[in-house]
Amino acid sequence: MIFTKSIKIKTKGECSILDISKYIEDAVSESKLNNGIITVFVTGSTAAISTIEYEEGLLDDFSKVLERIAPRDAYYKHEERWHDDNGHSHIRASLIGSSLTIPFINKEVMLGRWQQVILIELDTKPRDRNIIIQIMGE
Amino acid sequence: MIFTKSIKIKTKGECSILDISKYIEDAVSESKLNNGIITVFVTGSTAAISTIEYEEGLLDDFSKVLERIAPRDAYYKHEERWHDDNGHSHIRASLIGSSLTIPFINKEVMLGRWQQVILIELDTKPRDRNIIIQIMGE
Amino acid sequence: MIFTKSIKIKTKGECSILDISKYIEDAVSESKLNNGIITVFVTGSTAAISTIEYEEGLLDDFSKVLERIAPRDAYYKHEERWHDDNGHSHIRASLIGSSLTIPFINKEVMLGRWQQVILIELDTKPRDRNIIIQIMGE
Repeated sequence: MIFTKSIKIKTKGECSILDISKYIEDAVSESKLNNGIITVFVTGSTAAISTIEYEEGLLDDFSKVLERIAPRDAYYKHEERWHDDNGHSHIRASLIGSSLTIPFINKEVMLGRWQQVILIELDTKPRDRNIIIQIMGE
Repeated sequence: MIFTKSIKIKTKGECSILDISKYIEDAVSESKLNNGIITVFVTGSTAAISTIEYEEGLLDDFSKVLERIAPRDAYYKHEERWHDDNGHSHIRASLIGSSLTIPFINKEVMLGRWQQVILIELDTKPRDRNIIIQIMGE
Repeated sequence: MIFTKSIKIKTKGECSILDISKYIEDAVSESKLNNGIITVFVTGSTAAISTIEYEEGLLDDFSKVLERIAPRDAYYKHEERWHDDNGHSHIRASLIGSSLTIPFINKEVMLGRWQQVILIELDTKPRDRNIIIQIMGE
């Protein structure tokens, strides 16, 4: 009824966006379940999960909009306290969100053809990320 | 334990926002389940799911804020590559998100009185949308 | 298989952000379940659920970015209709989202050490909030 998989991913930092759809499809296949939901969750407060048409131009466009919303070089109290440089990373992560839930029907993940699941690394440095894929169904 | 319903909806394009709460309440009723969670997911990368107080003025306000975040007429690499006009649509969709999970208790969906579930069409043209409502419970 | 808990919280209004992680960990412990998912949902259209590193400076930074996205003093049609002052509250809530889904494994909630679950009060006045924590698993 429940199938869990943890995926470790090394990222390059600062708006590197990775297509993780394949991991999700593999997990559904391994689970042997036919119908249910897949929860995708990233541990940590400077990364996010979403979907996008995974195309290089669009990934750049997305970074640019995030820079408009929470600019890297703006003043953040968080950075003053920790002598850190990732205030913008935290805010962007909280806005986009750390979880996504996708249904699957007859073993098929209900993503569109041009809709991929992405891990968005928002921190300024490369990080080791832990993605939890939890599948629940019958 | 699992009840699935696919809803087909024709949209009008560019920030048309549709109240889909009724479909969700109907699905919970049809499922005969008493307690559990409802996952609402939209297939495709230029639409999003969220909640709002479904009031005409507010829907306009929401469009206006989305226009500030990712303006329709800004430059998007995505449009250059595909000779397309929906770069802003993709970015807005990735920010808002494609899934929502709502609990129901004693057959009652836990939405507030002024809180409706919405499909947000962000693409520039009318589209045929596929919404998956997956109910899991007992 | 399903464990539900409703939490009542009094907020202070306008971007007061509360750490609700403890309620979630307690609920998982009370549920006696070992593995599964936790859905956290806030009823109402002027509050949101997300995760953040719960640190005072960052909470201020977050409010500041929300003010840039949907300024309190901008013109909102919603306010004209209702002679109200919370147009920005609604928009911010719809952008951030009202639900979050987190996996737990061997009774452990899969949050990072610096990642807390937060209730974001976006309305202008103090409110009584109702948070639903629904746990499903085995």
